[in-house]
Amino acid sequence: MRADLLVRGISQLVTAEGAEPKRGAAMRELKVGEHAALAIVGGNFVWVGPERDWSGDAGETIDAGGCAVVPGLVDPHTHAVWAGDRLADFEARLNGVTYEAILATGGGIRSTIRATAAATEEQLVALALPRITALVRSGATTIEVKSGYGSTAEAELRMLRAIHALAAQAPAWIVPTLLIHVPPKEAAEREAYVRIVCEEMIPRAAREKLAQAVDVFVERGAWSVAEAERMLTAARAHGLRTKLHTEQFHRVGGLELGVKVGALSVDHLEACSAEQVAMLAASSTIATILPGVTLHLGLPAAPGRKLIDAGAAVAIGTDLNPGSSPLYSMQMALALAVRLNGLTAQEALIAGTANAAAALGLRDAGRIEPGLPADFAVLHGADWRELVYTLGANPVRDVWIGGQRVEATA
Amino acid sequence: MRADLLVRGISQLVTAEGAEPKRGAAMRELKVGEHAALAIVGGNFVWVGPERDWSGDAGETIDAGGCAVVPGLVDPHTHAVWAGDRLADFEARLNGVTYEAILATGGGIRSTIRATAAATEEQLVALALPRITALVRSGATTIEVKSGYGSTAEAELRMLRAIHALAAQAPAWIVPTLLIHVPPKEAAEREAYVRIVCEEMIPRAAREKLAQAVDVFVERGAWSVAEAERMLTAARAHGLRTKLHTEQFHRVGGLELGVKVGALSVDHLEACSAEQVAMLAASSTIATILPGVTLHLGLPAAPGRKLIDAGAAVAIGTDLNPGSSPLYSMQMALALAVRLNGLTAQEALIAGTANAAAALGLRDAGRIEPGLPADFAVLHGADWRELVYTLGANPVRDVWIGGQRVEATA
Repeated sequence: MRADLLVRGISQLVTAEGAEPKRGAAMRELKVGEHAALAIVGGNFVWVGPERDWSGDAGETIDAGGCAVVPGLVDPHTHAVWAGDRLADFEARLNGVTYEAILATGGGIRSTIRATAAATEEQLVALALPRITALVRSGATTIEVKSGYGSTAEAELRMLRAIHALAAQAPAWIVPTLLIHVPPKEAAEREAYVRIVCEEMIPRAAREKLAQAVDVFVERGAWSVAEAERMLTAARAHGLRTKLHTEQFHRVGGLELGVKVGALSVDHLEACSAEQVAMLAASSTIATILPGVTLHLGLPAAPGRKLIDAGAAVAIGTDLNPGSSPLYSMQMALALAVRLNGLTAQEALIAGTANAAAALGLRDAGRIEPGLPADFAVLHGADWRELVYTLGANPVRDVWIGGQRVEATA
Repeated sequence: MRADLLVRGISQLVTAEGAEPKRGAAMRELKVGEHAALAIVGGNFVWVGPERDWSGDAGETIDAGGCAVVPGLVDPHTHAVWAGDRLADFEARLNGVTYEAILATGGGIRSTIRATAAATEEQLVALALPRITALVRSGATTIEVKSGYGSTAEAELRMLRAIHALAAQAPAWIVPTLLIHVPPKEAAEREAYVRIVCEEMIPRAAREKLAQAVDVFVERGAWSVAEAERMLTAARAHGLRTKLHTEQFHRVGGLELGVKVGALSVDHLEACSAEQVAMLAASSTIATILPGVTLHLGLPAAPGRKLIDAGAAVAIGTDLNPGSSPLYSMQMALALAVRLNGLTAQEALIAGTANAAAALGLRDAGRIEPGLPADFAVLHGADWRELVYTLGANPVRDVWIGGQRVEATA
């Protein structure tokens, strides 16, 4: 075999093994190969194994220097495109001001919607690029980015176009999602907005290939289960996949809707019940947990341990956004999940790689296997567990996407 | 006035104002000066004020580019010198193994003591340097480092010598502390060890100027209040300052001892009572909280909010160590303290600068004032609150120590 590039001297080569998560079982386990090497042709892995078993030629050989290699992390849930900041909100909340009072004085999510509306598409891309770069430095190679800071069809579609422009410039694979986030303030306007979503936004997003999935925020004060069902049904009718933000603050039943419509994932789940855990475990929908929100807002953690013990497939995301999770690192999301959600180190790595890819409907990301894109991270140390152990420093040394080194950190 | 260096274009220049913490009041407040500049001569600040008020000459002028400047952070509590790792312990704990079982199978702190004993002084320095560099990148310019992974006088003094060698190489001011950490396993040997501490280790550390303070770990299973009192009394008799690790897991009364002997600080405090909070507030001893331990071990948080409301002066440290706080960032320690301990952003910055300096007995660190060493950090953004808001990325751009730029981060 002749490879473009051989990476040798890998102390531990770590990847998830096993089938796609499916009904009744989180099927994957972590495999750690020692003294390993990997070979790349045309941006894809073509060979992975013990270094002593490599017998081919390579155009270029790189020595990993006895460091560990993990799959490129997959961040399956971000709101990385926004304008403005929420520092005043943050300070007010630390000083004891309630979220309702912050909203009433013009802060909160509606201030982000206003600032995002006031920015040009170019400005939105310029603001988002360093956020994506920070996530890449933390080991992420595939990153989902949602719209959701619009309050009209034009505003949401403009956000999706900004995400596409971002994808063209960012050193990562970007997966765009149309998020239906904040309902109109006036109850009388909700019905009209749902129709705009179903009859204009979703059809246009599908036709113009602006999104791969539609996500709806189901919560008291946001969208109801019935409204979400109409929107997600429209999404499926137009060939788009579905996701939900649900069971974040209250047990609202979006989880059941997600299972019913075959959603790729239901995200948040801080408020979900034991019955809902069992229902999710009996489905093929991924449970995406977002520990940055738990840390930032001081809310209860999603029951990651219980979900896995029940047999659900768990993914981890940063939920990067200015209001509830200013978390710019997938590495730290994994590090938080083992501390706040009860995952083991192995479970966290699977949740941040193969399962996170499944939460995006991707079969070709999050694993190091021949035939898949050569997306991987080389750590500073020899033991891959440093990836979830380390707090406040970056254990990731180099990040490779499609066989190209895109980031090298100190 | 002629300055060696003028730094202009500072959006916000932030520093603690007010007197040293003293009995009955945390005296400091945060001052934020806008459109500011600072001037340096011979490594010290000589002038600080609104940029329009500067009328001197400068050998060199640097434009901060509209970014915020904060004092160099002071990390008042680390165990940054160790050998070996605790990754197997960490993994076992995530898999549900108890700390007692980990200790029984050769893990835990005694494994760090063994590995540290097996390393040469040069190896200890080489292992510690990147840890110090990580702390500096996070904004720290003064860092306390404790001994404590020795179990003989020679081992502890060797650790202190390694800390001195580290201080000579590290891009930060290093403050060494003699920590009396783990008692002998056999109860019959404790009395002899206390005598060695009082009659050999403390006198030698003082005579050879190897430590500025003595710290004792008071806890069930560690040292008793009575034993600690003998050791801290010896420390004072030899002109050394005193500190305690106390009220971490149980209300053991080391706090009362700290107040009685006039300790610089009592550290941890997760288990302290309302009466102890009041007692500390009525003293001049600093309350040092260590939120990394709260996150890493999932233990209750120290009552930071109650301490400040009662009038105590609170400092924040990383507690960097391999077993209970693998936290390599003072920035993240501040970010955790506002989320886990209830501090405001302003209180966190004072706690990580001026109050942390006071916890080390330093009057010349942690503030930006004429006459003090020019230790400061330039942030990436214009709003200093990003220092405590940001999770998982480094909001610190450049770190300056004694008027020299020592780190510049991406």
